Amino acid sequence: MNSQFCVALEHNYTPEDTISLYDIVKKARDNGHDIAAVNIVNPKYSRALKDINEIGPFKKDDIVVQTTGWAKYIIGKISEFLDFDSTDDTIRVNSELILKQEISWAGHLGLTALLFPTLPKQLINYSRCLNNCISSVPYAQIIIRIPLEIPDIWDRWNSLRNLCGHNSRIKIALELPGDLPEGESLARWFAEPIASVIVPKKIFLTNKNGYPVLSKRHQELVRKLFRQTNQFIISGIFGESLEKNGLPSYQQYLRHLFRTQVQPSEIEKLALDYEDYLQTPLQPLMDNLESMTYEVFEQDPVKYIQYEEAIYRALLDRMDFKKDEPLVVMVVGAGRGPIVERALRASERANRKIKLYAIEKNPNAFITLKQKKEVWGDKVTIVFTDMRYWDAPEKADILVSELLGSFGDNELSPECLDGAQKLLNPDTGISIPSDYTSYITPISSTSLYNSVSSYKDVMHFETSYVVKFNKVCEISEPKPIWSFQHPNWNIETNPSSVKFNLHNDRYNFVEFTIPENMTIHGIGGYFEATLYKDVIISINPPTHSEGMFSWFPLFFPLKIPMYAKKNSKVVAHFWRLHDTKKVWYEWCVVPVTTNDEEPIPQDVGSASSIHNPGGRSHWIGL
Amino acid sequence: MNSQFCVALEHNYTPEDTISLYDIVKKARDNGHDIAAVNIVNPKYSRALKDINEIGPFKKDDIVVQTTGWAKYIIGKISEFLDFDSTDDTIRVNSELILKQEISWAGHLGLTALLFPTLPKQLINYSRCLNNCISSVPYAQIIIRIPLEIPDIWDRWNSLRNLCGHNSRIKIALELPGDLPEGESLARWFAEPIASVIVPKKIFLTNKNGYPVLSKRHQELVRKLFRQTNQFIISGIFGESLEKNGLPSYQQYLRHLFRTQVQPSEIEKLALDYEDYLQTPLQPLMDNLESMTYEVFEQDPVKYIQYEEAIYRALLDRMDFKKDEPLVVMVVGAGRGPIVERALRASERANRKIKLYAIEKNPNAFITLKQKKEVWGDKVTIVFTDMRYWDAPEKADILVSELLGSFGDNELSPECLDGAQKLLNPDTGISIPSDYTSYITPISSTSLYNSVSSYKDVMHFETSYVVKFNKVCEISEPKPIWSFQHPNWNIETNPSSVKFNLHNDRYNFVEFTIPENMTIHGIGGYFEATLYKDVIISINPPTHSEGMFSWFPLFFPLKIPMYAKKNSKVVAHFWRLHDTKKVWYEWCVVPVTTNDEEPIPQDVGSASSIHNPGGRSHWIGL
Repeated sequence: MNSQFCVALEHNYTPEDTISLYDIVKKARDNGHDIAAVNIVNPKYSRALKDINEIGPFKKDDIVVQTTGWAKYIIGKISEFLDFDSTDDTIRVNSELILKQEISWAGHLGLTALLFPTLPKQLINYSRCLNNCISSVPYAQIIIRIPLEIPDIWDRWNSLRNLCGHNSRIKIALELPGDLPEGESLARWFAEPIASVIVPKKIFLTNKNGYPVLSKRHQELVRKLFRQTNQFIISGIFGESLEKNGLPSYQQYLRHLFRTQVQPSEIEKLALDYEDYLQTPLQPLMDNLESMTYEVFEQDPVKYIQYEEAIYRALLDRMDFKKDEPLVVMVVGAGRGPIVERALRASERANRKIKLYAIEKNPNAFITLKQKKEVWGDKVTIVFTDMRYWDAPEKADILVSELLGSFGDNELSPECLDGAQKLLNPDTGISIPSDYTSYITPISSTSLYNSVSSYKDVMHFETSYVVKFNKVCEISEPKPIWSFQHPNWNIETNPSSVKFNLHNDRYNFVEFTIPENMTIHGIGGYFEATLYKDVIISINPPTHSEGMFSWFPLFFPLKIPMYAKKNSKVVAHFWRLHDTKKVWYEWCVVPVTTNDEEPIPQDVGSASSIHNPGGRSHWIGL
Repeated sequence: MNSQFCVALEHNYTPEDTISLYDIVKKARDNGHDIAAVNIVNPKYSRALKDINEIGPFKKDDIVVQTTGWAKYIIGKISEFLDFDSTDDTIRVNSELILKQEISWAGHLGLTALLFPTLPKQLINYSRCLNNCISSVPYAQIIIRIPLEIPDIWDRWNSLRNLCGHNSRIKIALELPGDLPEGESLARWFAEPIASVIVPKKIFLTNKNGYPVLSKRHQELVRKLFRQTNQFIISGIFGESLEKNGLPSYQQYLRHLFRTQVQPSEIEKLALDYEDYLQTPLQPLMDNLESMTYEVFEQDPVKYIQYEEAIYRALLDRMDFKKDEPLVVMVVGAGRGPIVERALRASERANRKIKLYAIEKNPNAFITLKQKKEVWGDKVTIVFTDMRYWDAPEKADILVSELLGSFGDNELSPECLDGAQKLLNPDTGISIPSDYTSYITPISSTSLYNSVSSYKDVMHFETSYVVKFNKVCEISEPKPIWSFQHPNWNIETNPSSVKFNLHNDRYNFVEFTIPENMTIHGIGGYFEATLYKDVIISINPPTHSEGMFSWFPLFFPLKIPMYAKKNSKVVAHFWRLHDTKKVWYEWCVVPVTTNDEEPIPQDVGSASSIHNPGGRSHWIGL
């Protein structure tokens, strides 16, 4: 969320207008706006459209913005009369020449933002002209007007984006309609690069005091849009009157909405910095985590409560077991000890004696454990070892671990627990967590696609990233792709057998129906874990543990964005694979033909490639 | 065309087979074959498919190929019983393990070619396994069996190719059917990487002498396939009999077809070296051509005959004009003088006196001109200058130039002639050529796509290449995209005007209907030029000047191969653009929605990007 809020007032210059730029900017600022959006060129210059001989250096009264002095107070509007895809060659060619002239003038003045008129229906030559000419104004923001009331406006935008080769400089100004479209049709815009929001005067209602207000649904949308941009433009025709429902009241209302947003907590603010930022997943098995990483994760307000609850419930279920002895609880991968403390508290709450072991392989975290051991005393035995290779003096009744990644198994919890479960009593031992499931859904996000694409190599398109989603549209509710259960006694333990670790390989595919014409940029990955019985932790949106911030979703990109039509279906295929040194994922998306005769979804010619073959680009070290 | 012809005999090992590899190879070679195609593993190993405990080091009688000694005489066949997309997880997983084992064994033996069984219908996991495992045998040729009698086999292949990310190591073995499919369905295979052709015994007919022969259509196809590969495989079940219609006669027949091919001329042989080879177009305006380049082009058996004919016909039409004076003929861009000589001959034939000027800017070519001048004497005046800037002593009646590129205007003939036409008599002057038209058609070519793709950058996808097409399928007859006429007196000559050179810009689009499911890899470019009246030269396939070899077509690649369904339509858009220093092309391909209400074809979400925006990757210097 940006703290600086900027409201512009749009002025539609007509050929008859005699008002000076000075007066336009003054009117905007006197009425509480920060800047004005105004034509660069007087619309009367449209005479040049049909006569190439009129095209030449601008005459003084052909231009609205004449000097550089006002550059920082205006958004320059490109002429609406240009028609780049006219079937009349004269109009087409002259439009191209005039656009070059306007852009060149804007560059000369040093304008920092250019607003292009409503994206036209015929836009192939338009796209070429736009894509070419913006390279001559490298510092200006390029914004295309996108009125949501045009039914096919998303398809137009999508075509423009493709034709311009996903040029990341081209952004949009979303113009809100009086009647808001439903559901996904609106949601997909959150995946797009919104630079401005245009709020037309005509969509405001009047409240009982005579002030302009927005409907509840509009308010809700505007508040969501505050997370996308801080630049709003008020458009429409205003008289000179400065009554209470006059010019200033619209910007005042928007500023009021902005001010009265629910403020994020300190921890939420921390997370905001990570929005749409690509992080490489942690490799806690191969690398040792840093103290700061522990510090942040230990602050999670939900995760440890759930762990305590799970241990507490497991202890209650074992009250009569080994009655006079303490139950043996082992925390494997204890880190700096937060779950150890929760286990102690669970034991107190359940009034059930335990013998507690804390196992950790990270020598740095172990130093903190040793310090805490001074407080814990005999209640806790700390052991410095890799859980997979520890020769324990006794079997555990409860084995507690927190080795989950955003996708559940992606930090190698399955492999670690395969090694650690020999610590557990094979007949009656309880593993916390007892199972976890990975979920996926196709997502659309121009922003994430451009971030990956900016590396200009295949490797980054075959890597999964931890991302706090913001400019993202999840195309459907996520669906489960696979699960792991612990303990799992039916496994091969001989490392030289072909079956070794084979039980942790997975292959599955899930079908999704596309709700609106969409562009799929990748797959979102999530997990749900059962700690014990009905005590769960989840980052799967429908069941997300409220307030838990330890995990953001995973993003699996697609090299080539995949266009998918409304009501069509796609199938996402996922593999979890291994060799002796690593584990990796492969994935692909395959559109489905409409042929219902086939038992298994059929691929068509436009399948994506299988990403990350053989783990060539990204893997997790064993 | 490869001179070494290799015929393999396929042996289908059955579980009951007791024949040794030695006997298989001996039988093949004794009967005139070069090599044998045979299973690596005995089919009885299929028992491991349902029982993972059977998978382990091969037992002696589980393998057909046991020692490395025979490696160079065999193509190793991968087991047919594997099923990578089985819904039975045991079969799927065991298939993966067995494939790894077979490939590993093949690698150990050093086999140089691996033949995979018929591409299955369900192939998503198959694709992943194939793509992964072949990286462990980097030197082996990987060939997939493609029986043309399977109706959707092309779609399967196309899916495999996409899923494997256009892995250029995966090639095909085309298995010929008894009934050959029609037209385009067959033609599109010529765009694919054919490594082998499998000719089943059953498709042969028996001639009146009892020998096996192929039908006329099959013969024709096989002769075409000789241009794609020199490796043929004869398949089917053969008895032990060595009668005249027995085992040797099939390979003898294929060798006979190979031997009796029409042999290419010396010049055709020269051109064969350029098949599917990407050449960057010449820049004769910006750079000076080398003597060798002139040497090759001057040997064209058609071009200069047509130039002589055009000059001759123009002279005949001017017999009564300026009756007692010689007609002034200027050859601009005379090079080393071949057209000058043709003009002299035309003058003799027409019995019409001419005054001949030869203008050339290349100082090296000019040296040859000076030598020839000694032979020509007074009949020719040679001038060392750039045609655009020569201040001539008189006006030409006929201005002859040969500045055409593969796409007509792509070596800047329009700009050169704009500058040179001031040499021409404005009322009665004749320009040879008088006009030229560029033609385009979408093409499919895995080979060209992989060649461009191997550079791993955007620049090479935004460059046009001169290519002699071989492994290419032209999706439709080319259609005209634009034309230039000369002389053109209605042009702006002031270089500082916005109109300067604007008349040489072009924008047009052409619609094509796709005859079969296809993948479009780019656009082919051609030209047709009228030298004078009905004297033309052309490289547009339907009107190609027979035997003319001076120009190969242009290839404009697409960054992302575009899948297009049978009977769907695509529109190719082309631009010719300029700035003060250069001329360039931009292009894109846009699928058409089926909506017929719109007057202009509508783009859909899967439009390609506009290639080469602003001439950023490729241009021709002015």
